[in-house]
Amino acid sequence: MYMTSIELLPLRDVSESCAPQIVDAITSEAADGLARQLKALADPTRLRLVSMVAAHPAAEACVCDLQEPLGLSQPTVSHHLKTLVDAGFLHREKRGTWAYYSLVPRALDRVAGLITTV
Amino acid sequence: MYMTSIELLPLRDVSESCAPQIVDAITSEAADGLARQLKALADPTRLRLVSMVAAHPAAEACVCDLQEPLGLSQPTVSHHLKTLVDAGFLHREKRGTWAYYSLVPRALDRVAGLITTV
Repeated sequence: MYMTSIELLPLRDVSESCAPQIVDAITSEAADGLARQLKALADPTRLRLVSMVAAHPAAEACVCDLQEPLGLSQPTVSHHLKTLVDAGFLHREKRGTWAYYSLVPRALDRVAGLITTV
Repeated sequence: MYMTSIELLPLRDVSESCAPQIVDAITSEAADGLARQLKALADPTRLRLVSMVAAHPAAEACVCDLQEPLGLSQPTVSHHLKTLVDAGFLHREKRGTWAYYSLVPRALDRVAGLITTV
């Protein structure tokens, strides 16, 4: 019979001094995944980009509207947008000349939920 | 009469092509602050430390119980704990030989709330 793979942190002998048992904690794999997503958000420009997209009608914005308010070069803004797309926070769609970015539904809520239950 | 200091992103002339108005978005100061807090959390070891503290009775753990499960040196663990204390997620109290770390109430909830309303 095989057990499902659940990583538990090592338990310590309660007879040791200063050693309450750790009965539950985030797995190292879950911590790696959440850290990657938080790193993608942990930048002022990227937070402002997410916020600007969210503030647009239908939570979708043309890349042409995101560059000017930030005062950054097009390659810099594109780099930040790619990071947010790769992390699953924004969706990118090319339509004609421009790329349009929209919020991935519930992506921010999901990360927020993981933080409160870490 | 003085206005309170609320930063709004520049509005663009709606007659321009591809230019819906941005009526509300996170201020750059708020983005800086939230990015700093997220950076402090955006590390697998620090997420595991927060999780281990939370899993201890009364959400308080002796530093002596946090080092061994991570398999990291004492200076490395201390560095990560200091980052979490500086960011306002953990509280540190020295009692006798050991330092004890506890969760700052509602700190994780507050950051999660900011993410969902970014």
